[in-house]
Amino acid sequence: MSKKTIIVFSGDYDKVMAAFIIANGAAAMDDEVTMFFTFWGLATLRKPTNGAKVGGKPKSTLQKGFSMMLPPSPEKLGLSKFNFGGLGQMMMKKVMKSEHVMTISELIASAQEQGIKMIACTMSMDVMGIRAEELIDGIEYAGVATYLGEADEANVNLFI
Amino acid sequence: MSKKTIIVFSGDYDKVMAAFIIANGAAAMDDEVTMFFTFWGLATLRKPTNGAKVGGKPKSTLQKGFSMMLPPSPEKLGLSKFNFGGLGQMMMKKVMKSEHVMTISELIASAQEQGIKMIACTMSMDVMGIRAEELIDGIEYAGVATYLGEADEANVNLFI
Amino acid sequence: MSKKTIIVFSGDYDKVMAAFIIANGAAAMDDEVTMFFTFWGLATLRKPTNGAKVGGKPKSTLQKGFSMMLPPSPEKLGLSKFNFGGLGQMMMKKVMKSEHVMTISELIASAQEQGIKMIACTMSMDVMGIRAEELIDGIEYAGVATYLGEADEANVNLFI
Repeated sequence: MSKKTIIVFSGDYDKVMAAFIIANGAAAMDDEVTMFFTFWGLATLRKPTNGAKVGGKPKSTLQKGFSMMLPPSPEKLGLSKFNFGGLGQMMMKKVMKSEHVMTISELIASAQEQGIKMIACTMSMDVMGIRAEELIDGIEYAGVATYLGEADEANVNLFI
Repeated sequence: MSKKTIIVFSGDYDKVMAAFIIANGAAAMDDEVTMFFTFWGLATLRKPTNGAKVGGKPKSTLQKGFSMMLPPSPEKLGLSKFNFGGLGQMMMKKVMKSEHVMTISELIASAQEQGIKMIACTMSMDVMGIRAEELIDGIEYAGVATYLGEADEANVNLFI
Repeated sequence: MSKKTIIVFSGDYDKVMAAFIIANGAAAMDDEVTMFFTFWGLATLRKPTNGAKVGGKPKSTLQKGFSMMLPPSPEKLGLSKFNFGGLGQMMMKKVMKSEHVMTISELIASAQEQGIKMIACTMSMDVMGIRAEELIDGIEYAGVATYLGEADEANVNLFI
């Protein structure tokens, strides 16, 4: 049993999926896993709100702009390649379903069941104008020092 | 002598080249190196078929679509930036030639001569509709558990 | 106290910023940090010349093309997503300022004050047609073997 950390910087469906497949695989092998979500990767942790208003600190116009551009939920993330306005992503999700590969939502649920520690980067939340109220439950909030502390204890550290 | 692993997720000419330069450099320093090719990175291992049909399991329409979109051989990979429909890549390859930098095909050959272990991710092969018959000889086939086993023994693990 | 290495391959404002935030954070925790700038990441180290000619080895036409395409200074790097021809980057820099997040120029200055070792990849300099005269002072020049030597001594190695 050892420890792994993954920084999820990218907000691409395929890269986030790779991050969770590695994380869940490691957890299944009894590793302790910490995922640190920063920048575009934060969108992975968004709670689908169906347009409902969430409370919290008011956002500046620019923050509103950024949080509007970010996909509203993990299943809306695009592919890093061949996204074609979402068509490529839809195709890939369809193939994955027929090949019995889990969706990101399922991978997140599995990660939480397996006790993977998910941390939202507070500095990125400030820049992107994303509030804790908008993110899923059961995650932690911290900065780069916390990440570095975790990475120091791990034997595999990836930036995705 | 120590061990290194590199996940080649990206299918960009420049990033794949960086992966092989690091891998070959480490092997030249007597390190044991494992490269794990997944998602778009799988295209790196494609055997140029010149349009000839290869045998194997039939592909679904969506899988055919994905495998058609993927570059047919490593020398056809695009740049991650300034690709301009292949022009940027052509320019870069020309400069690299004049600077005596190896092409990806040469880097792959060198990696195989140096005994670098190259693994094709079987889950990605299923999703992308890529069959073993389409990939170069001398590689292995495995999943995330194998990668994690290798990474646990390594002192440097990169995701590219 | 331990050692960290970061390969800065990407030339995106957001990714380079992430690299420096991790590097500066580690240095603040008394870690020894080495950053290795390669490919598009080299643009980070460019010295703003305001169009003035710099001396050094003459460049080929293709090298001139590449060095012209690369942003002339770190503050001109684009975002990896939602760049919109520079508008997204401008917006993000504005939000960061209001949230008191340092710019890349400030992060570089802080990295140099903290004694972070910054290495420009000489092979990439040849390919991109970038000369030492065009890069900021106080950095080192080396190749992949030097990077691997540093990584062997480190407990966290990232590729960004």
